[in-house]
Amino acid sequence: MRPGDCLDSIYCDIVLIMETEVQFIPEGCITSPRGFHAGAACAGIKKKAGDALDIGILFSEAPCVAAALFTSNRIKAAPVVLSQQRLQTGRAVAVVVNSGCANACTGGQGMDDAVEMTELTAKGIGILPEDVVVASTGVIGMPLPMEKIRTGIGKIVLSSEGGHDFTRAIMTTDTVPKEVAVRAGDNRFTIGGVAKGSGMIHPDLATMLCFVTTDASVETDFLRAALKNAVEVSFNMVSVDGDTSTNDMVLVMANGLSGNETISPGSWQADIFQQALNQVCIHLAKAIARDGEGATRLIEVTISGAANPAEARLAARTVAGSSLVKTAVHGSDPNWGRIIAAVGRSGVEVIESKIDLFIGDICLVKGGCPLPFDSRKVVKVLDGSEVPVALSLGLGDGAATAWGCDLSEEYVTINSQYTT
Amino acid sequence: MRPGDCLDSIYCDIVLIMETEVQFIPEGCITSPRGFHAGAACAGIKKKAGDALDIGILFSEAPCVAAALFTSNRIKAAPVVLSQQRLQTGRAVAVVVNSGCANACTGGQGMDDAVEMTELTAKGIGILPEDVVVASTGVIGMPLPMEKIRTGIGKIVLSSEGGHDFTRAIMTTDTVPKEVAVRAGDNRFTIGGVAKGSGMIHPDLATMLCFVTTDASVETDFLRAALKNAVEVSFNMVSVDGDTSTNDMVLVMANGLSGNETISPGSWQADIFQQALNQVCIHLAKAIARDGEGATRLIEVTISGAANPAEARLAARTVAGSSLVKTAVHGSDPNWGRIIAAVGRSGVEVIESKIDLFIGDICLVKGGCPLPFDSRKVVKVLDGSEVPVALSLGLGDGAATAWGCDLSEEYVTINSQYTT
Repeated sequence: MRPGDCLDSIYCDIVLIMETEVQFIPEGCITSPRGFHAGAACAGIKKKAGDALDIGILFSEAPCVAAALFTSNRIKAAPVVLSQQRLQTGRAVAVVVNSGCANACTGGQGMDDAVEMTELTAKGIGILPEDVVVASTGVIGMPLPMEKIRTGIGKIVLSSEGGHDFTRAIMTTDTVPKEVAVRAGDNRFTIGGVAKGSGMIHPDLATMLCFVTTDASVETDFLRAALKNAVEVSFNMVSVDGDTSTNDMVLVMANGLSGNETISPGSWQADIFQQALNQVCIHLAKAIARDGEGATRLIEVTISGAANPAEARLAARTVAGSSLVKTAVHGSDPNWGRIIAAVGRSGVEVIESKIDLFIGDICLVKGGCPLPFDSRKVVKVLDGSEVPVALSLGLGDGAATAWGCDLSEEYVTINSQYTT
Repeated sequence: MRPGDCLDSIYCDIVLIMETEVQFIPEGCITSPRGFHAGAACAGIKKKAGDALDIGILFSEAPCVAAALFTSNRIKAAPVVLSQQRLQTGRAVAVVVNSGCANACTGGQGMDDAVEMTELTAKGIGILPEDVVVASTGVIGMPLPMEKIRTGIGKIVLSSEGGHDFTRAIMTTDTVPKEVAVRAGDNRFTIGGVAKGSGMIHPDLATMLCFVTTDASVETDFLRAALKNAVEVSFNMVSVDGDTSTNDMVLVMANGLSGNETISPGSWQADIFQQALNQVCIHLAKAIARDGEGATRLIEVTISGAANPAEARLAARTVAGSSLVKTAVHGSDPNWGRIIAAVGRSGVEVIESKIDLFIGDICLVKGGCPLPFDSRKVVKVLDGSEVPVALSLGLGDGAATAWGCDLSEEYVTINSQYTT
């Protein structure tokens, strides 16, 4: 039954409400959608490895329509270059990922190693290397320890419960696993996702990997467009555009095993698929911001009243990315002038006398004029685990939300001793 | 005698060598050039003031040709707006500056207060308020404590030895005074300068003030162009363009008391004046970077072989401003991949296989390939008080140098408790 088939408007409304629901699956992950299998092993790549998982494989029992976005950094790691080539076909069957070494700035050897990772994976599963995507994350400029990689891949056992292990295998300085799954389209399809990335204080730390799986049947071009839309409102709102690492990758694979009618632009399920994909990506993006290296708070910056949506996005990202705002939040210091200064330097149109500023629901600036405020109440908001900052620019309809984290001494400690 | 007057080339050469010399004056400052007087007082504006100087006046006994550059932030402090208006005439006689309060985001009251500061100053000296420039630096969003300001201005005694006090009066989180003076043009004229600004880790901290004085006679338009050129290779190379605060100002005042022939474009002293001005500004810019909040090292990033000078400047600034590079230097961690990654994301043209990278004189990457290196030797360079990083991009003739500092835990501590 599709909405278009219904005979009376009341029934239509009921169906539409159900169609727009996106339900989070408790403990969902990338193997929640039908037909996805994953596994991981400890290859001993990480410096202080112990028995930490550091290599993982994700596999779909049916070939997938696939779309991906890659780093815009002009220095691209070998696995990025290889995966970009392979995904031109718009299909993929498996992904192999290691953490602990980025395989970036590693010359011709780096490309040979990336190719070998896909060959080993393909051979183990019994598929073609051309259908395998590869990703790496970790230190730049060191060759992959291929002996360890070979042994590690050989140890991986794939299963439909393996998503959680895969999630842990791609972590670097992440302190918590980041994974999610939702059911949508009246339970017709499932989308799962996993991400890694924890350095977010300066956006060039966003050495981010994200893999999204779905059992929905989706047309290739629509999947590409939907991923782009979802990334715009999620990962691109925690990491300032252009400030990407050598290894960033967001991949979505759709195997069609839910048996739904193939979704294409204008399909009746196109909107709900987009909504569900957005929610998966926003959930993971916020998880990355919240787990920023050394972070103790999630900062959510909402801009409204900007001249247009693009200016709203830029203003929100600039505030969320300001070291001064981040340090002030870290110290629960109600130094709101830094927020105004960040908007002012963001490059967007602002008229000081039209700005309203809220921290939590406390209005600190109204029409550009500072209001007296109870410092203890503002400090209480800043002390929370989620700090909402809202700015209304009073100029137009542009609105956007960006996420960041506070900047702590711990961030510096982590990043000043990364390879030593 | 001017070079053009000489009769033989040997004599010409000697004169030209003398003309190109710029000599630093020991303990020079803004009152080193003839006819400049300054003074400062403790008005009690700073939060933890004690008896710290926090208000200062600079005065020239002869009217000055003046040029200035102001913040590009769309939120401009009242003193910036007022000084911008006043300097449209291209002349100024005095400057009044307070630290501890930025007088930014303070509405109509802020403008009234800025005007009153200039009126009080003019009255005390016996000049017109229109000839007084005003600047403020400190916390945003708080009204100026005008009662303290009035008392403070009344206490200031101007003298030709007062430059050092003025320097201290404009400091905020600066740990050392930043001042300099040079003699140039065969001792014909002197240029002095003072700057404040110490948060440089994220460029929007560059709440920078700089005042340059000279007794050279300089034509207005030439002075404007010369200042712009000097700022391009100095302050704009420690602070990424656009990331300016609400209060930034660089002002140069030329009173002509040296009696030299007025310098204009194409004048025989135009080049040496530009060189001397550049050296004053570069000296102050490096001092600001070196004294970055919590900084323990000056990082000097030199780019050569870029496709063009603009790309060289952008690449140098991006590396010098990268939090990852700064934290790695702080920990003396030879994690050179972060330098390559920063260049890659800077937006400039790079071809990985053409990049050479040096830390000190140790080559770590040649033609894009990592070289084996003695980690202890690199750590020794990174442990130094000045850390030179050089990248050759192998594409063209574009070259530039930028300065930054390491990012320390202390930076976070300073900035998380700025107003509390």
